[in-house]
Amino acid sequence: MIVSTVIAVGDPTGGAEFGAIERLAARAGTPPRGEVWIGDDAAVVRVGGGVIVIAADALVDGVHADLRLTSLADLGWKALATNVSDLAAMGCVASRAIVTVSAPSEAVIGPLYDGLFEAAAAYECPVVGGDLTGAPRLVVSVTVIGDGGVEPPPVLRSGATAGDEIWVSGPLGAAAAGLRALRSGEREGPLVAAHARPRARVGEGVAARQLGATAMIDVSDGLAADLGHILDASGVGCALDHVPVAAGASEADAVGGGDDYELVWCCPAGTDLVEGFARRALRAPLRIGRCLADPTTRTLQGRPLGAAGWSHFSPGDHFSPRE
Amino acid sequence: MIVSTVIAVGDPTGGAEFGAIERLAARAGTPPRGEVWIGDDAAVVRVGGGVIVIAADALVDGVHADLRLTSLADLGWKALATNVSDLAAMGCVASRAIVTVSAPSEAVIGPLYDGLFEAAAAYECPVVGGDLTGAPRLVVSVTVIGDGGVEPPPVLRSGATAGDEIWVSGPLGAAAAGLRALRSGEREGPLVAAHARPRARVGEGVAARQLGATAMIDVSDGLAADLGHILDASGVGCALDHVPVAAGASEADAVGGGDDYELVWCCPAGTDLVEGFARRALRAPLRIGRCLADPTTRTLQGRPLGAAGWSHFSPGDHFSPRE
Repeated sequence: MIVSTVIAVGDPTGGAEFGAIERLAARAGTPPRGEVWIGDDAAVVRVGGGVIVIAADALVDGVHADLRLTSLADLGWKALATNVSDLAAMGCVASRAIVTVSAPSEAVIGPLYDGLFEAAAAYECPVVGGDLTGAPRLVVSVTVIGDGGVEPPPVLRSGATAGDEIWVSGPLGAAAAGLRALRSGEREGPLVAAHARPRARVGEGVAARQLGATAMIDVSDGLAADLGHILDASGVGCALDHVPVAAGASEADAVGGGDDYELVWCCPAGTDLVEGFARRALRAPLRIGRCLADPTTRTLQGRPLGAAGWSHFSPGDHFSPRE
Repeated sequence: MIVSTVIAVGDPTGGAEFGAIERLAARAGTPPRGEVWIGDDAAVVRVGGGVIVIAADALVDGVHADLRLTSLADLGWKALATNVSDLAAMGCVASRAIVTVSAPSEAVIGPLYDGLFEAAAAYECPVVGGDLTGAPRLVVSVTVIGDGGVEPPPVLRSGATAGDEIWVSGPLGAAAAGLRALRSGEREGPLVAAHARPRARVGEGVAARQLGATAMIDVSDGLAADLGHILDASGVGCALDHVPVAAGASEADAVGGGDDYELVWCCPAGTDLVEGFARRALRAPLRIGRCLADPTTRTLQGRPLGAAGWSHFSPGDHFSPRE
């Protein structure tokens, strides 16, 4: 699970590091006009005569992954795919990656890079450089960059307004159900694959941007938490009619489970996204609710929408937020 | 000490990871025309309609720094300054940074970022985003990007030819002497500062590029090792007349000691760099020798130029390569 792509907002709701991140954002300075710094899935900067979107995440063995349950190649795949997902959540396409690996042994490098290169090929986002260092525990940090100058501009988390409809790119909860399956001894099947090899929804993100998305995020920490970031940043509430649940998952998985990397976004009411997605040969997106003017109201079928969260800085090591 | 900025070449000569890096470079694919991937201080890529230079390094507590001897703020400074140095070694200016921190405790974040923000201000390279995660040992991974479209193009390691003169931006060895001073109990003074707060030679790198440098690198692993990377990449040898030694350092510090972050570069014979540097109000660069056609000859005043090296993957934790 990814904590945050850009320091300010991507971290879990309510985690101890959230305060730390807010303090950093306040210290980082004010971006020049046209740039977006700490506080979204990716930063938007003007460098080299163009507009660049850039995002980074670190995965730590024992914190974000349990190598007894998932392979090094899966960890490598995930490290790159989740960063590609962060640019997809801006409606942008990651085109180059740079990777630092801090590893306890040289033996992990080859298998880890099997997965990194597989994801690089799948997303046409080659690894162009990086660093290898020794460390007592494996840490993989990936940075991706992409073209942010495409029109309309990158979709932030902060643009939703009351009345906007809320959409997701697909059913949720498969990754959480897959983690449970792994823990009970399963080693294959679609749920396990959903956890081990998450897909970045690049085409969906670009389509949502082109079709008028006002705010967007990827579901890395769970729908409640991540939609919550949009609501926080936009100053609106939500009323969800339903949450689409992936086959084999529960509603709790879909609402609270992370690691799905589906996209959730807002769009002006009445926008026909289904046809636009069909025209692009993409899976049909699903409308799940709407934005409310009252930022304190967040409901699913009239009940409060629970926001699962976890902190990376709680005592002791932990693999999953929800054990 | 930085192992490598871009995977292929920045690592120490002869380390076990060198083989791993070469294998990765072979697997990463062939860059499109005009791009430089794994194998230099930074990668050069075309993204967002422009040319971007990008570099990344990770610093690991206990491997690259000993927090009993240096402060978290110093570690933060170093993590950013050394990446700025990697772009300087291409003749380029880092303009934006993205940082992932994996930390055992939230308490380290503030002090670490004190140094990161100080360096960001000093080099006008703001931190625009990143990630915070938990981890048993502190790892700071910094990526910087800059404009690579400036003319003449970024200076690689591979452009030196026989007869080129070899220059350095200043005397060497202060950082190694500073580390020794720290270990013997000193906590201040210019040598300690040279180790704790290395300076990126940005103006010098840009000037060298503008004045015709054919190959360049920053001295992170020691002159012998880093000049060795230029010689390896360019297929030439060298005859050094002398090595300028920083006050308080020894010739061994200057030849074998890392962490100085002075630049070393090659230039066609007869180029008047001293006047060009003076015109830019920069310290006078120092000519130390010349490139030879025979790649197997590497001498300092007729003696073999020893190449100190270390491996991040040797058994056990280690702070310094040369203990």
